Amino acid sequence: MNLNEYIDHTLLKPDATLTMIKKLCQEAKKAYFKTVCINPFYVKHAASFLADSNVKVCTVVGFPLGANATSTKVQETVTASKAGATEIDVVINIGALKDNNQAVVLQDLQDVRAVCPKNIILKVIIECSLLNEEEKIIACQLVTKAQADFIKTSSGFAGGGATVADIKLMKDNIGPNVAIKASGGIKTKDDALAMIAAGATRIGTSNGILIINNKSNDSEGY
Amino acid sequence: MNLNEYIDHTLLKPDATLTMIKKLCQEAKKAYFKTVCINPFYVKHAASFLADSNVKVCTVVGFPLGANATSTKVQETVTASKAGATEIDVVINIGALKDNNQAVVLQDLQDVRAVCPKNIILKVIIECSLLNEEEKIIACQLVTKAQADFIKTSSGFAGGGATVADIKLMKDNIGPNVAIKASGGIKTKDDALAMIAAGATRIGTSNGILIINNKSNDSEGY
Repeated sequence: MNLNEYIDHTLLKPDATLTMIKKLCQEAKKAYFKTVCINPFYVKHAASFLADSNVKVCTVVGFPLGANATSTKVQETVTASKAGATEIDVVINIGALKDNNQAVVLQDLQDVRAVCPKNIILKVIIECSLLNEEEKIIACQLVTKAQADFIKTSSGFAGGGATVADIKLMKDNIGPNVAIKASGGIKTKDDALAMIAAGATRIGTSNGILIINNKSNDSEGY
Repeated sequence: MNLNEYIDHTLLKPDATLTMIKKLCQEAKKAYFKTVCINPFYVKHAASFLADSNVKVCTVVGFPLGANATSTKVQETVTASKAGATEIDVVINIGALKDNNQAVVLQDLQDVRAVCPKNIILKVIIECSLLNEEEKIIACQLVTKAQADFIKTSSGFAGGGATVADIKLMKDNIGPNVAIKASGGIKTKDDALAMIAAGATRIGTSNGILIINNKSNDSEGY
């Protein structure tokens, strides 16, 4: 197993500068990470920095709250795709999910899916730390129905983060065509390997360099 | 002075449900607050709940990170306005501001301003806790140039919050047509009055009911 290829090298802080994004891209190329995961404003820059590599550009939509109008999520997806993103991590409508308004949650995701070109990998962030077990299971079912490529544990902005228990719960409740991205608080190689052992095939972290060098970091992981 | 009329009664948590939004609107009507401040998904519901009152609907754009494509902020503004929002709190492009890329920061705000109908009050969140003094001053100048109606201290999602020192700095550096909204961590009547004494004419808080009843709350204010 090549751990590097599991990693979305992530920098989503609101005060990230272009210099920091450029460094992130350089690190990702050198380490052969799967993607860089950045905010939408930086997609065009990252696509340019990564043009001579196999590292893909991942961005976020309706992030991190998910409580946008569906038309805004759709516009943001289309814009990111045109700017060079090939992976889209969209936040589910958490309030509607908690209201058990499944039709709204599903339509929101289906509308985003509908505007993704075929080459786009769509991941849905369900924000596990804000959900009870029943809500997590319903989220797995709706993400499957919406034909997303991945279900993702966390935004990294709502407290909590990926847990082995949540990865296992997801694995038991998603369809066969949905994969799992673990994200939020993943700081060490051991953390990453535990998520993969539980069923994750993608790791979102701001600690990718430390993880592949098997060092630890006291700062918060995203 | 009627403190109630200074307050944007705020609920921006990602897991806010429709029941919680309805309660917020009922409270705002009863207390004669200026607005309710809610996420874009709930604008149409809030507009309906508040139709028989003078309480306005305020929503957020590019929130809370501000690192979206400008076209997305524009789309979100237009959508919110059509759904019934008359106040828009948009987050500045914080990364571009830190890069001193003033042209990008200004154009982003001007494009949002350009699609606001005349009845819309536009507020720009500069996220003081992430800026140094020089960046705060530049932000004041750009917000003034963009002809926003208000400059706002904080999203409530980036740590920190409104301080008297920041309100004074803003007052010294904005133009005569820009007002100040203090937000983030405002929990008590004394907090609110200190912000108003320093120059704020709007208070964003999730503790509005406690504030007007002059009670305190240990939970985090937004």
